[in-house]
Amino acid sequence: MTKQQLTENILAKKSYLCVGLDTDLGRIPQHLLSESDPIFAFNKAIIDATEDLCVAYKPNIAFYEALGAKGWESLQKTLDYIPDNIFTIADAKRGDIGNTSRLYAKAFFETMNFDSVTVAPYMGVDSVSPFLEFENSWVILLGLTSNKGSRDFQFASQDGQMPLYEKVMRTARTWGTDENLMFVIGATHPEKFAEIREIAPDNFLLVPGVGAQGGDLAGLSKYGMNESVGLLVNSSRGIIYAGDGKDFAEKARAAAQKLQEEMAELLQEKFG
Amino acid sequence: MTKQQLTENILAKKSYLCVGLDTDLGRIPQHLLSESDPIFAFNKAIIDATEDLCVAYKPNIAFYEALGAKGWESLQKTLDYIPDNIFTIADAKRGDIGNTSRLYAKAFFETMNFDSVTVAPYMGVDSVSPFLEFENSWVILLGLTSNKGSRDFQFASQDGQMPLYEKVMRTARTWGTDENLMFVIGATHPEKFAEIREIAPDNFLLVPGVGAQGGDLAGLSKYGMNESVGLLVNSSRGIIYAGDGKDFAEKARAAAQKLQEEMAELLQEKFG
Repeated sequence: MTKQQLTENILAKKSYLCVGLDTDLGRIPQHLLSESDPIFAFNKAIIDATEDLCVAYKPNIAFYEALGAKGWESLQKTLDYIPDNIFTIADAKRGDIGNTSRLYAKAFFETMNFDSVTVAPYMGVDSVSPFLEFENSWVILLGLTSNKGSRDFQFASQDGQMPLYEKVMRTARTWGTDENLMFVIGATHPEKFAEIREIAPDNFLLVPGVGAQGGDLAGLSKYGMNESVGLLVNSSRGIIYAGDGKDFAEKARAAAQKLQEEMAELLQEKFG
Repeated sequence: MTKQQLTENILAKKSYLCVGLDTDLGRIPQHLLSESDPIFAFNKAIIDATEDLCVAYKPNIAFYEALGAKGWESLQKTLDYIPDNIFTIADAKRGDIGNTSRLYAKAFFETMNFDSVTVAPYMGVDSVSPFLEFENSWVILLGLTSNKGSRDFQFASQDGQMPLYEKVMRTARTWGTDENLMFVIGATHPEKFAEIREIAPDNFLLVPGVGAQGGDLAGLSKYGMNESVGLLVNSSRGIIYAGDGKDFAEKARAAAQKLQEEMAELLQEKFG
């Protein structure tokens, strides 16, 4: 999917919502456990209930990997079930030496046909570039993450010039373009979005941390939105575990709709 | 496996060799492709040919993941086949927010029963700590990696105090102990090993980059060895693809033996 298509989808659906599929056997409704593939049964119901309200789905790969080979089958079925016009994100946070990153890229872009994959920057250029070489595919590179540990290394000044997250973003912008590179910027740092937009004016940002982690949608949208919208705001647990009974999908829809309606207003303010 | 057991194995086998199982359908001998599981058939032959010469095996998870669910089955079979007294490393370079890292830890330590997993530090404490909470399990955290891209961020001075790799190591040593935390230090930086031993005197180091990447075994061993040996030196392609015909396992053994014999000499110099 191109950047332009993504923006068009957002404006058409009045939503820049990404639904995170952090699907956990310990948290899905009990009545699904008798299904032959409870993980897929849950995801299918969530997708049916939310696909008109969101523009992206983000399976968190750890949740599938923790189930071994069976988990990968559930993941593939989920990916196949997501409508083609919805952007898919493998939230995998991979990154390794060149020949290995190339195989991770192959895993997510060819074996599984995701639109994008999240990548960790620590190992530098040859750990990221192989992901950028696949056509019609996106790297979503960790910039400033939403978690407590983001304060351990990401804010330290690099050679007295700029914090690590900024150096990562500025350096990575020389590796890719706004047509194949996005950044992860946590919603838990809303005060940073104006500055982030100076560093990366044109790149889309994937923003986790609204909902369970406490980020502020209006604040980050005000400063983070650009002329292409430029935001994919993710909620995982706040949507998919909104209910835990037989009506879980309706509850998930209601939670997604609440965010979508807020997004529609914020888009209206910006784009009229 | 405890640190003491690992050291005992090294001294008994006169080897601190780790064999990297970067098993690639495009590079294994053609005659194996007719097997029902060519990846496992190859790994089994490599393990049979090298298990007395090495103290660790390191499957590179990307190579299995690129094959989808079938790859995970080959990985599980490989892991089950590795003798219990050989240390196993899931070279996965994972790391995510706390609840997600916990699931990656579960995937590698419980679902698959690896002794250790490589972890990326960018997201800080809550991305690493969940891996440290599993008993008899090890985190091998990226410190200074062997690749070209290690120069992009890892050497930059943090707040004018020390390079990023040093800050990562010093910080992480407050999260774990030398009984559950090792560091990845690339063999391509042999001049750094004396300094690395000042930063982390007691931790084991996993050292990739000997062989295909050009690192120097004698140099890094001289400065990197400590009283517990403290080194696991990995070779992947240099061993497993030493031959590409029907005698590939013998060729792999010969390549492993060459490294093991050099290690035996270096251990002799240090421990007598």
